[in-house]
Amino acid sequence: MSPRRVSADPIDRSTFPVDPWRLVESRYNEDNLGATETFFAVGNGYLGMRANPEEGRSAYQHGTFINGFHETWPIRHAEDAFGFAETGQTIVNVPDAKVMKIYVDDEPLLLSIADLEQYERSIDFREGVLRRELIWRTPAGKRVRITSSRMVSFTDRHLALMSLEIEMLEGSAPVVVSSQIINRQDGRDDYHAAKNGSAGSDPEHQPEFDPRKAGKFEGRVLEAQFDWHSTNRMILGYRCTNSGMTLAVGADHSIETENEYTELESTEPDIGKKVYRISAREGSTIRILKAVAYHTSRGIPVRELSDRCRRVLDRVREEGHEIFAERQREWLAEFWTNSDVELDGDPAAQQATRWCIFQLAQCAARADGQGIAAKGVTGDGYEGHYFWDTDIYVVPFLIHTNPKLARNALRFRYNLLPAAQKRARVLTQRGALFPWRTISGEEASAYYAAGTAQYHIDADVAFAFAKYADVTGDTEFMHRNGADVLVETARLWADLGFWRVSGTEQSFHIHGVTGPDEYTAVVNNNLFTNVMARYNLRRASALMLEMKESDPANYARILQDRDLAEDEILEWAACADAMYIPYDENFGIHPQDEHFLEREIWDVANTPPSKRPLLLHYHPLVIYRFQVLKQADIVLALFLQGDQFTPAQKRSDFEYYDPITTGDSTLSAVVQSIVAAEVGYQDLAMTYFMSGLYVDLADLHRNASDGVHIASAGGVWNALVYGFAGMRDHDGKITFDPRLPEEWNGLRFPIRIRDSRIRVHLTAGTIEFTLEEGEPRTVFVRGQEILVDGVVGVPLDGQGPRRSLAAEDASVVGETRADGTLITATVPDVDAPREEAALLGFEHELPAG
Amino acid sequence: MSPRRVSADPIDRSTFPVDPWRLVESRYNEDNLGATETFFAVGNGYLGMRANPEEGRSAYQHGTFINGFHETWPIRHAEDAFGFAETGQTIVNVPDAKVMKIYVDDEPLLLSIADLEQYERSIDFREGVLRRELIWRTPAGKRVRITSSRMVSFTDRHLALMSLEIEMLEGSAPVVVSSQIINRQDGRDDYHAAKNGSAGSDPEHQPEFDPRKAGKFEGRVLEAQFDWHSTNRMILGYRCTNSGMTLAVGADHSIETENEYTELESTEPDIGKKVYRISAREGSTIRILKAVAYHTSRGIPVRELSDRCRRVLDRVREEGHEIFAERQREWLAEFWTNSDVELDGDPAAQQATRWCIFQLAQCAARADGQGIAAKGVTGDGYEGHYFWDTDIYVVPFLIHTNPKLARNALRFRYNLLPAAQKRARVLTQRGALFPWRTISGEEASAYYAAGTAQYHIDADVAFAFAKYADVTGDTEFMHRNGADVLVETARLWADLGFWRVSGTEQSFHIHGVTGPDEYTAVVNNNLFTNVMARYNLRRASALMLEMKESDPANYARILQDRDLAEDEILEWAACADAMYIPYDENFGIHPQDEHFLEREIWDVANTPPSKRPLLLHYHPLVIYRFQVLKQADIVLALFLQGDQFTPAQKRSDFEYYDPITTGDSTLSAVVQSIVAAEVGYQDLAMTYFMSGLYVDLADLHRNASDGVHIASAGGVWNALVYGFAGMRDHDGKITFDPRLPEEWNGLRFPIRIRDSRIRVHLTAGTIEFTLEEGEPRTVFVRGQEILVDGVVGVPLDGQGPRRSLAAEDASVVGETRADGTLITATVPDVDAPREEAALLGFEHELPAG
Repeated sequence: MSPRRVSADPIDRSTFPVDPWRLVESRYNEDNLGATETFFAVGNGYLGMRANPEEGRSAYQHGTFINGFHETWPIRHAEDAFGFAETGQTIVNVPDAKVMKIYVDDEPLLLSIADLEQYERSIDFREGVLRRELIWRTPAGKRVRITSSRMVSFTDRHLALMSLEIEMLEGSAPVVVSSQIINRQDGRDDYHAAKNGSAGSDPEHQPEFDPRKAGKFEGRVLEAQFDWHSTNRMILGYRCTNSGMTLAVGADHSIETENEYTELESTEPDIGKKVYRISAREGSTIRILKAVAYHTSRGIPVRELSDRCRRVLDRVREEGHEIFAERQREWLAEFWTNSDVELDGDPAAQQATRWCIFQLAQCAARADGQGIAAKGVTGDGYEGHYFWDTDIYVVPFLIHTNPKLARNALRFRYNLLPAAQKRARVLTQRGALFPWRTISGEEASAYYAAGTAQYHIDADVAFAFAKYADVTGDTEFMHRNGADVLVETARLWADLGFWRVSGTEQSFHIHGVTGPDEYTAVVNNNLFTNVMARYNLRRASALMLEMKESDPANYARILQDRDLAEDEILEWAACADAMYIPYDENFGIHPQDEHFLEREIWDVANTPPSKRPLLLHYHPLVIYRFQVLKQADIVLALFLQGDQFTPAQKRSDFEYYDPITTGDSTLSAVVQSIVAAEVGYQDLAMTYFMSGLYVDLADLHRNASDGVHIASAGGVWNALVYGFAGMRDHDGKITFDPRLPEEWNGLRFPIRIRDSRIRVHLTAGTIEFTLEEGEPRTVFVRGQEILVDGVVGVPLDGQGPRRSLAAEDASVVGETRADGTLITATVPDVDAPREEAALLGFEHELPAG
Repeated sequence: MSPRRVSADPIDRSTFPVDPWRLVESRYNEDNLGATETFFAVGNGYLGMRANPEEGRSAYQHGTFINGFHETWPIRHAEDAFGFAETGQTIVNVPDAKVMKIYVDDEPLLLSIADLEQYERSIDFREGVLRRELIWRTPAGKRVRITSSRMVSFTDRHLALMSLEIEMLEGSAPVVVSSQIINRQDGRDDYHAAKNGSAGSDPEHQPEFDPRKAGKFEGRVLEAQFDWHSTNRMILGYRCTNSGMTLAVGADHSIETENEYTELESTEPDIGKKVYRISAREGSTIRILKAVAYHTSRGIPVRELSDRCRRVLDRVREEGHEIFAERQREWLAEFWTNSDVELDGDPAAQQATRWCIFQLAQCAARADGQGIAAKGVTGDGYEGHYFWDTDIYVVPFLIHTNPKLARNALRFRYNLLPAAQKRARVLTQRGALFPWRTISGEEASAYYAAGTAQYHIDADVAFAFAKYADVTGDTEFMHRNGADVLVETARLWADLGFWRVSGTEQSFHIHGVTGPDEYTAVVNNNLFTNVMARYNLRRASALMLEMKESDPANYARILQDRDLAEDEILEWAACADAMYIPYDENFGIHPQDEHFLEREIWDVANTPPSKRPLLLHYHPLVIYRFQVLKQADIVLALFLQGDQFTPAQKRSDFEYYDPITTGDSTLSAVVQSIVAAEVGYQDLAMTYFMSGLYVDLADLHRNASDGVHIASAGGVWNALVYGFAGMRDHDGKITFDPRLPEEWNGLRFPIRIRDSRIRVHLTAGTIEFTLEEGEPRTVFVRGQEILVDGVVGVPLDGQGPRRSLAAEDASVVGETRADGTLITATVPDVDAPREEAALLGFEHELPAG
């Protein structure tokens, strides 16, 4: 089935009621177990726990993940070639410490069959704690209230806290709680059961393979190395068979009850148990607390890691659980002060927006030296790999709200630089080539056409560094780390491209690369790549020339460390200035690559939903032959390098590409929303925003079960701030040209400029800036310079152009979900460009079904 | 190390003396064990045995192969995508029945350390028997003459015969002969030992991986199903674990000796033994005969196959070995009458030529319903797969010499048609798409860019059918089988391509394909593909329109079976007539593909030999960015579709592409030779001919150990007949425009036209035709029509133009082989086109080492 587009709230509100600060599931449902495990996952960027019920069942995938903790495996190419990626890297589903099984009268609680009088599961984004409360009428007719909580600490990276409260409302009964740490060897059984249709995201529509999923292991991944327990504590230790990474996990338990109870402890290599057997009397309450600590490393002995776990657990024992919950609230209060986006007039979208932003906290808060994976720590989709998603979709959010976290994400890239230099050598290039997907720094993309060939990642990384420095003013970091990255990436571009002379004109060309759009591969002069490479070259050259004056010590260091001469620095500027930018006079648009317009146009409108996303139904060779986009490519360039295009160009390009963009990638909608808003297609901007906003919560791509789409979540913030609020920050200059949707009364959010925090409040008639912290700063509203000191309002004459051509042309179809709700989806209409194309001589064919 | 080019005899004649009818190894040498196992391999197109010594050691790879007998394995793509090949197919190294171990005084004969007074190994191409004769001075000082022979029968497909004669020249001794059938489980140990450098083709220069090799098995391949023996007979049966293919192998033994002896027999699942213990007296002779039968099937029970083996062995027991040796000589006499090419004045080249033609007999004679694999049955290189090599390099030879074998090869393609139709569906196309590489008919190419994307295979198959019908006049086969293939391939082209209108002109374009040159992949309008597809479309259309008149029954059958309407037939002609043929006015050449000339030019001259072949030292992305060819592409089109190009175009194209063709593929040199001869570069034609002629015998590509390069061997015949003798057979019209090299006095060979055999004798001043069999036929010599009835001579005014530009420009370098002989190699000079290119604005960069 095709990824769905929505233009209004698509959520089943009978199950998930609107609440501006919480996500709530008000009745137990197994409709889409994999997706809800993702929705309610808790994590801190280091440690993540999927929302499996305490008692373990039912589950789509039991999941506990630690950022960067991975196993390696040799990539066996069916046909190998020089330079193909050799080492697969897959995030490991680590031993599960979430389990607290509950038995009343020896009957296990099993939600799928339990008689539940009451049920609610919720997460409050200000609290950061997953809570569940239910009343169970047991088979013996007794009534029990069970309340549980789970949090992963933002302040204590290695810590998770859980609680379980059992209250006998009617009847007395023997109650058993078996709290466990269990090493399921990566949940293969569940995963495979799910693939065979027993549960999961729309399993009957899943084709046999899905290249976006993980699951490459054959043998045992975690070797048990250590297990130990005392009365209240257990610790287990493991080592990854191939990667040699080590892990220890410990748990402390305590119980509060007036009932009599006995307790039992045991640990074995793959399981640790703490069992409470309680004679529970009617009216009594049992409260069990569980503190869990995880420590991991590249290879430190497990015993050392277990000592580290002990120290974390000791601290909890000394200070008590509640203080950590309080710190969690404090941390989140600070986070929301810096990051909240308020939507006036749309509480449903408000809720989803905050859920997305909360996911950004959960993936980035304590990533520390690690990258931010495509799924954060909420699932093993894409094998836990880091992509360009972070640099382009998440880092800008962090720069404007939590610059320290942005710096961490960039430090991670800096630390990969030696590996990237090595990879460039394999590709016969100078400089550095960042891996398309990786955990360890080694290229793990085994399909180079849509992987290694995406050289643009180099410019994306450089772009993120430059934006960070521009907005935060952190030149020290730029000179000490960023410059090295800019130099080595610029070097790659200068070496990769080549000069071509035509008459008196020289131009610089880049051949054989793939742009962000993966439905076209290995092309010449991809526009996105060329404009981003141009920026990379320009910034590197300018930075070095500037450092020569302002920071001669670091300048000299780089010249020496990187064997760099000033000639080369000047050459970068020359390459940038001569960069070839494909433009087609006939169409008045930029071709996505030099020969893009020579292709046939894919008839998106007549491609049945059963054949989408295209990548799961057509051989790459077929897709590559056509003008059809998986995701925004030029449109993304129009946003990121917006100061390099005229408004007329943006409009023409958007109008050409939008109808042939399938949006099969979740990276697409949010970018299409931003540019649609800029060029005036407000309805389309809202549809794309909604389609990005609900990617996960409405499971629009039918793979929310694999984990949160972090880039899309970051894109939601981008769509609000850059799209509807019309902010731009080219070269650190903060400008606004707002596009407030008619549906909303206002939009309110903070941004950071250097050390200052300014809250922006956009309404239909005014944009108001409030300096909340730091020095006064200057911003620009539609060309007008505004000094923000205290509160300053700028009246607005409308919200930009309002066009409706594309929106009117788009055909709207209704799709009915499994639960009976009607989804309104918009299918892009490809007739417009097809007619134009026909004039230039294309005939159109639909690949046969 | 780069593939070498030679312009003179490169063989070490102290080891391999010149002999026009035999290949002889006159002293034992382990220099290149893998290669000599290939040189002296015996086979009949069904069964092949590498030239491992009877006693088993030393070996690079013990090898016995049966055409099409393969194991399957799931292709695990590191990153999968829709339509990627799923089932790996690898030829199985079957149980080895060659082994006859010899012990004298309990000492085993081991050639590598034995004191050999005399040694000769030879194969006579008129006899088809591998013979070895040696005198061994044993450690105890005794002298023993050991003579052995081995043949695989051309007349009895399943039969191999061996003999061993031991003569005690000085001293008496206990002699033990242990004759075996041993299932080595596919020789993995040997193979891996070889890869680690203990033996093989220049192992120290082998990179860690070589995508051209086989070796994908992990578990046990052959499951033992059956073993049985009587006094003189043993039979073993096996089943492939995954593919389910079954095999039985049996052996009969007999002994002739006046000495006393005892005998022992045993069989176990993986080994059968017949042991003779002989009290050998000085002056006495022991003669042991071994008859071996192999039967295989897709899944017939092993017991049934063992009965079939019995029947073969019974026949040998009844008729005796000698009668089969005689039939072998008769078969070969007939073969040489139809196939020999005599080179007057170059006995060394004569020997190598006959070796190559003998290999064509060995790969094709009894392929029967199977295809002809890239290595025939002489090795497991390329996993025993069938490629387009057969259709383009081997079938033309068979058509002109042994049309029945050509028909078999084409029948094999016809039988693959349903699988090819299925594959087209997966690629979203109508018609049929033949698999790029396969055994079973399923696509096994796991790297689509240089595999599945080579759609040209469809036209190559159609081309072979058309040539067969044109030359043989076998219209019945064409109407009954060929038409189906032409229809379904034409259908694919019509569906794959698309129409483009420019002003009043319509043209038909084919995008996203790879031509024969694998150093450029997935391009638009590859010239080779377009001209071959045009031919395919034209022939299919013409054939159907002709059949409508001449064979309405078959016409109607095809219309019904293939759901075909006359509109579609007419559409093919329209597609063909409008086929876009890229041509560049500036360069005055055909670009290899529409955008080929926009690429940078690879500096072949400055690429160090240590970096060649390029495919083992550069990532495909790097290679694809440049103008550099692995193998003839346009130049092949100039040959196959020679009537579609003017002489001036051929010369310009050849001059442009020749210097940027690395010849990293062995498919290249022979084609370059043909076109070099035609356009007048006679020296270059000879260099390329020699480089093709000695591909294996001088191990020019350093992988002769993997088996015979069958396509190159076929190409040698092509280079002689089409190249130097200047024959063409476009549309069945046989024409000659000879190019006899100055080095040679004459060239003499037979060709078949319909049922007639005509012997052609070319000398410097005359071309003479002799009708040896059948009706008189018409040929053309430089435009002049000649009726060949009896003997007719046509005087020649020279041998075409003689140019030397490219030959003079080519720099000649000397390379010294491991054995100390000097090899003269010619490196193509890329300066000429580079200068031209520079005028049009290219700058050149050498990828960094």
